[in-house]
Amino acid sequence: MSPTPAMLPPSGAETGWIILTPGMGIGPEVALRALAERPALWPRLVLAGRGQALRLANMGLELPLVPVAELVPSAEGLALWDPGDVPEVCEAAAVRAGAHACLAGRAAALVTGPIHKARLADQGFAFSGHTDFLGDLCGADPVMAFAGGRFGVALVTVHIPLAQVPQAVTAQAVLHVVRTAARAWIEELGVSPLRIAVCGLNPHAGEEGMLGTEEQERISPACDVLRAEGLELRGPISAETAFMDAMAGRVDLVVAMYHDQGLAPLKAVDFGRTVNWTLGLPIVRTSVDHGTADALVGTGRADPSSMGAAIDLAVRIVAGRGA
Amino acid sequence: MSPTPAMLPPSGAETGWIILTPGMGIGPEVALRALAERPALWPRLVLAGRGQALRLANMGLELPLVPVAELVPSAEGLALWDPGDVPEVCEAAAVRAGAHACLAGRAAALVTGPIHKARLADQGFAFSGHTDFLGDLCGADPVMAFAGGRFGVALVTVHIPLAQVPQAVTAQAVLHVVRTAARAWIEELGVSPLRIAVCGLNPHAGEEGMLGTEEQERISPACDVLRAEGLELRGPISAETAFMDAMAGRVDLVVAMYHDQGLAPLKAVDFGRTVNWTLGLPIVRTSVDHGTADALVGTGRADPSSMGAAIDLAVRIVAGRGA
Repeated sequence: MSPTPAMLPPSGAETGWIILTPGMGIGPEVALRALAERPALWPRLVLAGRGQALRLANMGLELPLVPVAELVPSAEGLALWDPGDVPEVCEAAAVRAGAHACLAGRAAALVTGPIHKARLADQGFAFSGHTDFLGDLCGADPVMAFAGGRFGVALVTVHIPLAQVPQAVTAQAVLHVVRTAARAWIEELGVSPLRIAVCGLNPHAGEEGMLGTEEQERISPACDVLRAEGLELRGPISAETAFMDAMAGRVDLVVAMYHDQGLAPLKAVDFGRTVNWTLGLPIVRTSVDHGTADALVGTGRADPSSMGAAIDLAVRIVAGRGA
Repeated sequence: MSPTPAMLPPSGAETGWIILTPGMGIGPEVALRALAERPALWPRLVLAGRGQALRLANMGLELPLVPVAELVPSAEGLALWDPGDVPEVCEAAAVRAGAHACLAGRAAALVTGPIHKARLADQGFAFSGHTDFLGDLCGADPVMAFAGGRFGVALVTVHIPLAQVPQAVTAQAVLHVVRTAARAWIEELGVSPLRIAVCGLNPHAGEEGMLGTEEQERISPACDVLRAEGLELRGPISAETAFMDAMAGRVDLVVAMYHDQGLAPLKAVDFGRTVNWTLGLPIVRTSVDHGTADALVGTGRADPSSMGAAIDLAVRIVAGRGA
């Protein structure tokens, strides 16, 4: 099924089309509940995932799901594209197809729901998550960031054992993550002036070398370079101070050196409101900040607000790009 | 100056006396402002610190400071004991004297204000902070914990470089910290049933070994032992989950494996309300959760609430012990 001529966009990413892969667990139900509140988006959105799961999740909602044979929206309701009988896990196939549509300029953004990594790994999926998978697909070095809550967070390292974190926190990695995140916050979100806090690696940011030297040897020199490039940046500072200042509204973006340093405080204060935003890819990709929450499936208690926030952020970024 | 006979307590820790060392920076002013709101405590409290700094901080407050020659309260006002001309840094001498009074059973608790570690180190102070200093004084292995806010936190490792954390997180250390903290929360704070969450070391608590093996090799076996001892304990779980559950009121005490994992989320949500509580010592010791904030000295903008909370927690613990 093709869109009506009136909907046909000029070309490429200017379609403004959004591909939403609902993922697993509570993904289909939070996706449909978030979309029920956003009917204006239906003419430019395609759901890509397991049709059966989506139809089950649609019971009670009764949104007009319209099966489509290609990743193209429908004028008659909510387009639903099922990868069908493919040699790869259905959810991975949907994400792959959505990413390719964005790379080819047929869609403007990819919004993803939660996947269950261990279950996908059992089925032969070789990546630690969406972010790695998309980085590989796009041939890019992605940056994991979180937006939409009280403050933004970007991570220098992500899914590696803590013991590998100190050597992975190089000046080069700090430069890449801060530059990528700063560009996204300034250009895509329009935050200006952007106030950045860069955390240290060690307690108290190393306390002048007494608790570790990575700050002096790698993070501090990187921060000097970034300030010289014109960024309004404090750091390396103690992670506690960075997050207290962010909570007090004095910092817009916290750059954390590793997973728990950034996500434990962020999720404590902003769970359900933040969006996982993959930066550094040639495509726009946002995602929920929660997992598959299998115990909540079908109970009606799953909260669609993170999915709604992920959709809204994608729409905002696409709008900013002039789509 | 001695207390009047009517104030003389039966003996030992049953005095209920509290020694307060205001420390450096904003310490004297937040101590006096917190005490101005708690006049009922004056007959059982001694301020131990630099008299000149305390008298300066008292300008405008005009609390009745009464110089005393020994660590003994005064019936005529707020007892102020100055270590005077001692061979050691004044603040360290005050803490040492206060700890000795507690160890000797002459006082019931020690409450400490902030010290500036780098400045003390320049003056020959050989410890990374109060906690280490008191551990050494008392010949004990102290546990750093935080109470008084929305949830409690205890740390398995504290002031060491991040690169040293993985090897320092042993099953033995987890057992020691959880047992010590659980006893304190149950016996001193009367929290029962106590719901404990133990964080993993790695992102997602190692994700079943895919992101590190310390959980399987050390933390998980320790948690099994602790559950077998009767503790209501979940873990090792992802730090994000632990703190989200604590914020949602489903967890009373989070045991974090290292400094930033525990303190970045705690201070983001509870700064100014929490109290640094040193467990595992033969004495009761509480402290503010902030630093010397030198830039705020004398501005009237320093917030005395953490000092007030530290005093109140000490009073509560002492009361529970039957003083």
